[in-house]
Amino acid sequence: MARNKVGSHTFRPEIPVYIGNWASVAGKKEAEGPLGHGFDIRSMDTRFGEKTWEQAEKRMQQLALDRLLEKAQLKPRELDLVFSGDLLNQCIGSSFSLRNTGIPHLGLYGACSTMAQSLLLAAMAVGGGYADRVVAMTSSHFAGSERQYRFPLGYGGQRTPTAQWTVTGSGAALVTSQPGNISIESATIGTVTDLGITDAANMGAAMAPAAFQTIRTHLEDTHTTPNDYDLIVTGDLGTIGVEALMQLCREAGISIGGKLTDCGNLIFDPIAQDVHAGGSGCGCSAVVLCSELLGKLHSGKLKKLLFCGTGALLSPTSTQQSLPIPGICHAVCITSGR
Amino acid sequence: MARNKVGSHTFRPEIPVYIGNWASVAGKKEAEGPLGHGFDIRSMDTRFGEKTWEQAEKRMQQLALDRLLEKAQLKPRELDLVFSGDLLNQCIGSSFSLRNTGIPHLGLYGACSTMAQSLLLAAMAVGGGYADRVVAMTSSHFAGSERQYRFPLGYGGQRTPTAQWTVTGSGAALVTSQPGNISIESATIGTVTDLGITDAANMGAAMAPAAFQTIRTHLEDTHTTPNDYDLIVTGDLGTIGVEALMQLCREAGISIGGKLTDCGNLIFDPIAQDVHAGGSGCGCSAVVLCSELLGKLHSGKLKKLLFCGTGALLSPTSTQQSLPIPGICHAVCITSGR
Repeated sequence: MARNKVGSHTFRPEIPVYIGNWASVAGKKEAEGPLGHGFDIRSMDTRFGEKTWEQAEKRMQQLALDRLLEKAQLKPRELDLVFSGDLLNQCIGSSFSLRNTGIPHLGLYGACSTMAQSLLLAAMAVGGGYADRVVAMTSSHFAGSERQYRFPLGYGGQRTPTAQWTVTGSGAALVTSQPGNISIESATIGTVTDLGITDAANMGAAMAPAAFQTIRTHLEDTHTTPNDYDLIVTGDLGTIGVEALMQLCREAGISIGGKLTDCGNLIFDPIAQDVHAGGSGCGCSAVVLCSELLGKLHSGKLKKLLFCGTGALLSPTSTQQSLPIPGICHAVCITSGR
Repeated sequence: MARNKVGSHTFRPEIPVYIGNWASVAGKKEAEGPLGHGFDIRSMDTRFGEKTWEQAEKRMQQLALDRLLEKAQLKPRELDLVFSGDLLNQCIGSSFSLRNTGIPHLGLYGACSTMAQSLLLAAMAVGGGYADRVVAMTSSHFAGSERQYRFPLGYGGQRTPTAQWTVTGSGAALVTSQPGNISIESATIGTVTDLGITDAANMGAAMAPAAFQTIRTHLEDTHTTPNDYDLIVTGDLGTIGVEALMQLCREAGISIGGKLTDCGNLIFDPIAQDVHAGGSGCGCSAVVLCSELLGKLHSGKLKKLLFCGTGALLSPTSTQQSLPIPGICHAVCITSGR
């Protein structure tokens, strides 16, 4: 078996890998939510000074990367690589944000699991000695997502109670070989799991089986139980998906109860902000990780976190063709040295 | 500097990495082309038994993966990981093909550079000791691409002389730590390069600057010249893009002339098959690599190949918004031990 592989689907970086810095950019609604105070950049202009929603998303990634570089005191050419992706068709948020920066780029598509996927690959690249400074980055935009996946906003469509609200935001994290107090200890790569959910307005339910699969695999591969973690954070199952995941865990005899939380449930106030089943979008778990969660790991309030990015791998075309919604979940175990 | 990094944007796998097996699936037009005899599976049914073009694309990936596993005498659960992506919105060709297979999956978006990108990441994963058997896979479908990026086929739109023809096909390669006679020696990660081309029907011109950038970087990083390679293969610049790349090389004093060829120019007969500026699509460089090129490396007819996947990172939305077309190119150096 490969020397840095652990169990069936998990790996540990060959050399220690650290998360050195992070940055988050968020829109108005996100800034008004319970985590609003923690975001680095908060904009009241949801177009971020650009003409279109898609260009606003590109701009958010540029802002997140610029702020990250500023915090890390690095120049763009000092980065070895950026792993990034987003929800826009052909991931134009990511590719346009890196145009002519001269930074090597590998584009990803993992729907809302992209933050975990990019972190995992960054850990592989740095841990394998291929790179010293790699950025993991992603974004999403409520208005761009609505018109691409559902209806144009002007149409005023009613949202169903199971619908989640796509977060307007971008998060970026610097994964590096330079020692710091936050490490990536291991990561579990997910499999495409599909139990036949076809309701595109209930993505939490579609993703829950993938989250369950990956969390169970991670616990088995690393010989741990939920008690070994301070927090197991999914992103983003929302209220419905979390309930489904809890049920799957109960049935499998995994007591995850007191440990589980979800980025989609953390980012908005369920009473004051009407988002139905919670937040979603690549940007949701990205901004929650790159503010609240990494902040608490940095201060030592969290010692060991399992960050589980969940993605619904549907497209409007697959939905129109009555196909079910495959889900995926990648898990990254992040620990604090404090 | 990271111990397996070479020069600015290039890396060498930590331990030797091999390409053990490969498989290709192609449609009718591709089967009738000059490389037709070399494809493992040739279908006269462009729907591959499915109801839609998108599901046909999924089916091609399944067929490519099945044939690859058959050749390698492996079961799905013996694979550590599949890196794959395609051109369909939200990459549904890739995610649907791996539904419920239990194989760990990381989704990519690199447009037509995806075959090179997936090979490069597979080399990183195997070389870093994270995995022993990784599949790099991609696909494209002419009819699905036409209706997504341009016009529905039934509309009968005229193609411009600079247009390229999206290949219907899928290619898959097994990257492994098990010694064989084809090795991945090094790889260069591309940067998003944009010189302002806005004509979405001239993607060769849009991608040529990225190809030039990456080839030049690879030669500098590895201290080689085009003469050190038997072949430098881009995929897919087509006739217009190759001319532009030749001109950029001439201006930079790089004599690439006798060494350069392009998957988009190899796959169709320019006279007998009317494809204007050549083939394109993720599937183009994938099927050419996973038949003709790896075949010639296996037999020793080629000793050293620089495989340069080129992608145009546009979307219909970015084109409608009058934005230019960013390009990217990743290069993988593949050598034969024969």
